[in-house]
Amino acid sequence: MSEPIRIGLLGLGTVGQGLVRLLKHNRGEYVRRLGRPLIVTHAFARDLARKRDCDLTGIKVVNDPHFITREAPVDVVVELLGGLSPARELILEALARGKPVVTANKALLAEDGNTLFAAAKQKGVAIGFEASVAGGIPIIRVLREGLAGNRIEGLAGIINGTCNYILTQMAERGVDFSVALAEAQAQGFAEANPALDVDGIDAAHKLTILASLAFGIPLSYPGVATEGIREVTARDIQLARELGYRIKPLSIAKRSGGRIELRVHPTLVPEDHLLAKVDGILNSVIVQSDAVGQTGYYGKGAGGDATASAVVADLLEIARELGAHARFQAHPLGYDPAAVQPQPLLPMREVECAHYLRLRVADTPGVLKAITSILAELEISIEAILQKEPKGKEDAMVAIITSVVAEHRFATALEKLLVLKFVRPGSTHLRVEHFNGK
Amino acid sequence: MSEPIRIGLLGLGTVGQGLVRLLKHNRGEYVRRLGRPLIVTHAFARDLARKRDCDLTGIKVVNDPHFITREAPVDVVVELLGGLSPARELILEALARGKPVVTANKALLAEDGNTLFAAAKQKGVAIGFEASVAGGIPIIRVLREGLAGNRIEGLAGIINGTCNYILTQMAERGVDFSVALAEAQAQGFAEANPALDVDGIDAAHKLTILASLAFGIPLSYPGVATEGIREVTARDIQLARELGYRIKPLSIAKRSGGRIELRVHPTLVPEDHLLAKVDGILNSVIVQSDAVGQTGYYGKGAGGDATASAVVADLLEIARELGAHARFQAHPLGYDPAAVQPQPLLPMREVECAHYLRLRVADTPGVLKAITSILAELEISIEAILQKEPKGKEDAMVAIITSVVAEHRFATALEKLLVLKFVRPGSTHLRVEHFNGK
Repeated sequence: MSEPIRIGLLGLGTVGQGLVRLLKHNRGEYVRRLGRPLIVTHAFARDLARKRDCDLTGIKVVNDPHFITREAPVDVVVELLGGLSPARELILEALARGKPVVTANKALLAEDGNTLFAAAKQKGVAIGFEASVAGGIPIIRVLREGLAGNRIEGLAGIINGTCNYILTQMAERGVDFSVALAEAQAQGFAEANPALDVDGIDAAHKLTILASLAFGIPLSYPGVATEGIREVTARDIQLARELGYRIKPLSIAKRSGGRIELRVHPTLVPEDHLLAKVDGILNSVIVQSDAVGQTGYYGKGAGGDATASAVVADLLEIARELGAHARFQAHPLGYDPAAVQPQPLLPMREVECAHYLRLRVADTPGVLKAITSILAELEISIEAILQKEPKGKEDAMVAIITSVVAEHRFATALEKLLVLKFVRPGSTHLRVEHFNGK
Repeated sequence: MSEPIRIGLLGLGTVGQGLVRLLKHNRGEYVRRLGRPLIVTHAFARDLARKRDCDLTGIKVVNDPHFITREAPVDVVVELLGGLSPARELILEALARGKPVVTANKALLAEDGNTLFAAAKQKGVAIGFEASVAGGIPIIRVLREGLAGNRIEGLAGIINGTCNYILTQMAERGVDFSVALAEAQAQGFAEANPALDVDGIDAAHKLTILASLAFGIPLSYPGVATEGIREVTARDIQLARELGYRIKPLSIAKRSGGRIELRVHPTLVPEDHLLAKVDGILNSVIVQSDAVGQTGYYGKGAGGDATASAVVADLLEIARELGAHARFQAHPLGYDPAAVQPQPLLPMREVECAHYLRLRVADTPGVLKAITSILAELEISIEAILQKEPKGKEDAMVAIITSVVAEHRFATALEKLLVLKFVRPGSTHLRVEHFNGK
């Protein structure tokens, strides 16, 4: 058997410990694949004394991360610290020294991936990031290589397990957001500070990465229109269900004419679409391509072992190509870096989609007529409508699914509707996605 | 822009024409990925005069296939002839001359892939076959690389679109097999001679390939236990539905102790499982792995363009690695050829699964008692039971879902049941798959 591949590991948290366990547990399988073992020889941990759920025998654990990137005799560096700093500096340091890097850091990639990719290219070394999106699903390789024969038209995914778990709980048990969030926190499916997840930021980071792979564009995180799930109510989930939809935390990237849409928001999905059936912490991505049409992928999005296995997929590829000239390696985004050019983004106000609108109304005659007249005036058709009598303390409701309409035109309609004298505070609206070949 | 990659194409049928069209249509995308164009310079067709649905300008079309493999100045050979011969000889000829090969030929791979892989290894050239299974879904790369961090425990898939289409039609419209088959043939979803599809042979070929990738074993086509869908009736589909199942044409590969199960047969799948919702000509594969658990993949399984796009995925990878030393290339099965060792197969009689059993019975007292006694005697539990009164010309029926039981034990029970005096001819049984983590 040949020399082992020596790994320098930055971070011994959940994923880092998962990686150490997995490398030990599946050592034989990796040797069968690679012809040589993958072993962690050095690891950085902030707190050396902390008890860890993995066997650190044979690993030199240090509390200076720069020792890993500057001095340790390793073949590849794995960054599992998360966050922007010092991960950024450490990755750049490793790349500058000609060491390939594997990272799961979606925030850093989304916000500064262009710099990292340029640094990797300059030294002709690889940077792997399969673990950064939908840990258990090899969606990076699917986009970068599996579907490379296609021009990808768009993709839509459930790529934040916390949001999907919360919305699933709300749907199954009729509880409101705050209750479902508190429970998700108690069960470890949501952080104490849940903002990164429930405000859509984590999903926007991941969408940024998927869009760059799908379209061959630089990472464009500031271009993602992002809305979280805090405003979704159990009432809306129920009404959506009566209309034949589920509410899912979708991330959407689409070509639209010569421009690109990037958006993250809770979305009504037809109940018979496969995305409507992906519940709990599961992730799923569907991709629309010119030659194969729609393909779909689902699996666990997070968890130490799932994410660690994605890190290993990168390690196996990088180890195999170690020593090969850079021109033989896959480009990080699957496109020749010279061809990775920005494309104009479609401003949110020009985005076209169907909308769900729930109006809380007084129970007086003429309500429907007034609402439908305003929509008709703006040439917005009604695809479905549901009227609910007042019940107990609850006002009467009108729930509508509109035709596909530009965001600014829907906003105009909304403005006019909300000032009608019988419309009461507490109305709401959400976007709808029908996946009909776009 | 660098020199183009010159492709020698064997076969100008549906997929071949799709490939020529796609290479033209997405030329710009491929140049963005590869830095150089992919062009077909030479093609072999049996009938030069036939009209084709693609632009052959610039392609030298010949009617001697050996011209492509022996003389044409091409960088890579694409084999889209199908069938065992002359595809086998042509591929070996190309490999022997150091030309990488891309093939969609599942029958040849399943039956003689070990020879092809050995020939490719001997010359240090690549052989790509993403197009051989589930054309539109990049399942080969998923198993070979995406999930390489996992030890794969098993997989189950709908990998024959014709069978899935026929069973879907039978389910949706209550028609019997022969009617659905005739319609599928009229619509071009089934061949005039449908045996390869409906008898499960095509699926067995594909399962052979998936199993080798999943477990790192040689291609073992003779080891696949294969049953087609001809015996499935609309009645069974209806009864299965009442019991909460759909009948799907599944191909299953599983580790079972130190042995491996390989089987193709119509199977009852719980209605809430994602595989139960994959209808029509769609394909889908779910994979059970140790680190990520269950992941799933779906998309179009066939069609000229979908399959052609999988060929292009291989061409892009092979073109990128052209000139690199063989040690930097991915192994065809993802495992070091030296580590690809046969594993014992589990004989069908030892396979354990749940069963669906439909007995046609006389409408006399004591029927259920006699049936349940026989099952109890053999320690086979009943998970669900459905009794149907006689209706019109139809006898009374008893439909049962058993617990998980070894095939030979179920067969013993069946023997005893079928000789009961109130059991009439026309009873049937099918296997059931519950996907509970195995």
